[in-house]
Amino acid sequence: MTFLERLDRAAIRNNSLLCIGLDVDIHKVPEHLMGKENPVLEFNKQIIAATCDLVCAYKFNIAFYEVMGERAWYTIHQSLARIPYNIPAIGDGKRGDIGSTTEFYARSMYDDYDFHAATVSPYMGYDSVEPFLKRKDRCTFFLSLTSNKGSQDFQYLNIDGQPLYQKVVDKILSWNENGSCGLVVGATHPEELAGIRAKVGSMPILIPGIGVQGGDVEQSVKAGTDAKSMRAIFNVSRSVIYASSGENFARDARVEALRVRDEINTYRPKK
Amino acid sequence: MTFLERLDRAAIRNNSLLCIGLDVDIHKVPEHLMGKENPVLEFNKQIIAATCDLVCAYKFNIAFYEVMGERAWYTIHQSLARIPYNIPAIGDGKRGDIGSTTEFYARSMYDDYDFHAATVSPYMGYDSVEPFLKRKDRCTFFLSLTSNKGSQDFQYLNIDGQPLYQKVVDKILSWNENGSCGLVVGATHPEELAGIRAKVGSMPILIPGIGVQGGDVEQSVKAGTDAKSMRAIFNVSRSVIYASSGENFARDARVEALRVRDEINTYRPKK
Repeated sequence: MTFLERLDRAAIRNNSLLCIGLDVDIHKVPEHLMGKENPVLEFNKQIIAATCDLVCAYKFNIAFYEVMGERAWYTIHQSLARIPYNIPAIGDGKRGDIGSTTEFYARSMYDDYDFHAATVSPYMGYDSVEPFLKRKDRCTFFLSLTSNKGSQDFQYLNIDGQPLYQKVVDKILSWNENGSCGLVVGATHPEELAGIRAKVGSMPILIPGIGVQGGDVEQSVKAGTDAKSMRAIFNVSRSVIYASSGENFARDARVEALRVRDEINTYRPKK
Repeated sequence: MTFLERLDRAAIRNNSLLCIGLDVDIHKVPEHLMGKENPVLEFNKQIIAATCDLVCAYKFNIAFYEVMGERAWYTIHQSLARIPYNIPAIGDGKRGDIGSTTEFYARSMYDDYDFHAATVSPYMGYDSVEPFLKRKDRCTFFLSLTSNKGSQDFQYLNIDGQPLYQKVVDKILSWNENGSCGLVVGATHPEELAGIRAKVGSMPILIPGIGVQGGDVEQSVKAGTDAKSMRAIFNVSRSVIYASSGENFARDARVEALRVRDEINTYRPKK
């Protein structure tokens, strides 16, 4: 099953465009889990069990695991093992290097961890992502217009009347012969998101930035979904997983996930 | 001791601008090491022991370790422990994410691994690298003009008469209030390297691309060194560490490292 098949089925089955980002900071894990052998893993297990009928995907930002040192690999693998088979998992590492090196990043993401999708940075160009793109059954999401304030520094630079992020999107469209490309576009830029969606048709777009980062749900849902009201993956991390910090953290995460899923659905255009 | 102090001292003591990249692919590790408990670590130990009086730095490209899965962290730490105290180690991960996430990458690189320097990608802008830049005793190298073919895809895009990589360099100069910035510029672009050096003074430049990638040593040394004939770090990986694949691999790596170090020195401008 390809990433896209898995994504579409999960989105339909769970009636959801919500992706939960398992960005677990040990300092925010509820107190009562701290005595467990691996508090982060325990946290993930409970969040996944409480929300897996509400999401179209889970996302692992590798930074939060890398900082765990020698436990990173085990924690990611064991967390992945708790995700139901038919829900896709995205490895968010924003990788990219010269071709011969990126090959190893692609193996790590797509063979070792067996993520169904991964994020990459476009700056180093085609050969820096080619080993990812060759994997037709996966989806490689390119940073295009990011949700953070720093997106202003380079992504809007004017190139012959077009902002850099548009040039990036155009290039990725030309690289998409395997249909294995996706984009990362922040919910904090709804107008630009609408323009990108108009250009890329049904290419999947990973949309972070609602929740703590303040992106507008209504605007970004209307702007980001495709003609079938699909293929937009709204990632929310902190506002769901840290909905509360007590013994009922997983139940409260579920309540918040349900609320966000339904809020997103409110604004999905009718097909 | 800051990265720059460490770098300058190692460069002077070992009369070297050569950095060896420990990009170890298990499939290229000599046959006779494959029975060892950790062949990659054994390989690194022997390469480091054979070359540590010839280099100004070592570089770890994280991709080659990440693919080792659960042994990655241990192998990096144990390899770092074999590097003499006064030689700097660079963590090459080309990281970057929204500010609150990059904080974790910076902790991983600068606290957990305790690398003296690290590489980052500029695409996401200031907040995506700020946690790295705050570390005044380290050096954060920004991808500017990379050595690979894909550098043509975006880095030369014309912005008001200037290529994107120049805009990146200008921005980094403006972010360098702590003196903790460096640049990555490929040896495959010697003319552009000369222009960048003229602009950035004595900022350290990490220069990959001589060796297997085919960058010209004479041109890139003349273009890349600063007024004191320093602060250019020429990284060579494969052509040194895989100089041979027999029992004498470490001795042969030393011979090649010595040759490259001396070739670089031949072209260093007299101070």
